[in-house]
Amino acid sequence: MNQTDDRKAVVLLSGGVDSATTLAIARAEGFRLYALSFDYHQRHRRELESASIIASALGVIKHLVITFDLREIGGSALTAEIEVPKRKRKLEVKNEPIPVTYVPARNTIFLSFALSWAEVLGAGTIFIGANAVDYSGYPDCRPEYLKAFEAMANLATRVSVEGKLRFAIRAPLLAMTKGEILRKGMELGCDFSSTWSCYDPGPDGKPCGKCDSCLYRAKGFKEAGIRDPLLQFHRGK
Amino acid sequence: MNQTDDRKAVVLLSGGVDSATTLAIARAEGFRLYALSFDYHQRHRRELESASIIASALGVIKHLVITFDLREIGGSALTAEIEVPKRKRKLEVKNEPIPVTYVPARNTIFLSFALSWAEVLGAGTIFIGANAVDYSGYPDCRPEYLKAFEAMANLATRVSVEGKLRFAIRAPLLAMTKGEILRKGMELGCDFSSTWSCYDPGPDGKPCGKCDSCLYRAKGFKEAGIRDPLLQFHRGK
Repeated sequence: MNQTDDRKAVVLLSGGVDSATTLAIARAEGFRLYALSFDYHQRHRRELESASIIASALGVIKHLVITFDLREIGGSALTAEIEVPKRKRKLEVKNEPIPVTYVPARNTIFLSFALSWAEVLGAGTIFIGANAVDYSGYPDCRPEYLKAFEAMANLATRVSVEGKLRFAIRAPLLAMTKGEILRKGMELGCDFSSTWSCYDPGPDGKPCGKCDSCLYRAKGFKEAGIRDPLLQFHRGK
Repeated sequence: MNQTDDRKAVVLLSGGVDSATTLAIARAEGFRLYALSFDYHQRHRRELESASIIASALGVIKHLVITFDLREIGGSALTAEIEVPKRKRKLEVKNEPIPVTYVPARNTIFLSFALSWAEVLGAGTIFIGANAVDYSGYPDCRPEYLKAFEAMANLATRVSVEGKLRFAIRAPLLAMTKGEILRKGMELGCDFSSTWSCYDPGPDGKPCGKCDSCLYRAKGFKEAGIRDPLLQFHRGK
């Protein structure tokens, strides 16, 4: 066990700033990159265009998009007819319950497909852009969850049982603030003008600026002292 | 924690004899049934017709079929251009490696969707027809794997983190022989003529009789002292 792989990694890529930075980190560490995105009929499928541009810009070997319809399961503002909450201005999430934008077991579904692909590729590392600092309190972004998934993964697969490969679930952004993530991404050459964060873009195709995802993004750029190139692009239109 | 649910269960239903018996067991225990099947572009998609007939016969409240394409990931004789192994007559699997019909992380993907649906439904129990006696040695049918999935599931979801529901992964067939499974299924009123096991049906639409799935099925009916109604049906055509 614990044999090293041949430095292939599967990287979950949503198209947002976190997953773009995660992909850039994996690249900087010398991994051969396989990016995995999901068209789950999310309200903000616009993010998939971003994922495709980022994958190409960061030189992935293959970018795979798996399609299924989570609207059939529902239970989230991102996949059902539930309104995405908007805030007046401030992001105050202390002691709030987990919001309705939580998609039931989404990261578990995503990581399961990543595990399947990693096994076929012989890739021992799966990267996910989960963050447990500036985040919406989603249960499947917490370190204890990721550890439990890793333990399960190493019992689930032929390659792990036969001792050929041991899987590591890596979440390099886990303990970083949004500002730190953005600075790291810039440092590693991410073009954030290609990323997409908004859960609920308007009919004009612009970010709403009021959902939690927009607000965390804004907080991060403010902290990092950088102007958001995506907003500059939209203002320039 | 450990609050009981309202006796809803999500049951993974492939359309084979094991999942049919599992569904019948869940029904006999008084659960309100939600059956979940997957069209993953498996070679033997024929099994989905069976799943639909079984779900209806056993009175499920809803039967959901989630569609995605595991051929994009490949790595198995069931989803890629790899031949399904056939045996001359005998099933001798002691000390054999895990066969090419293993689909990388398939049960993890299936259970992840089941977890998502269970969370939305408020169902605390997920049934899977995994068996670790008369089986092909798949890693994701072993009790230690199922325990690890359960542990992960209880960290992955809003309802578990908020203490509203605790998930149990139940595999009632785990320690039964194929003969015992079939007897139990018959006892509970399963009509096995509606089930499908063959991995690789011929162009005539009949079971091949030589893949491991056909051979385990034959072994089970022999042990149970029952004639396989599916074969009788095909012989009668």
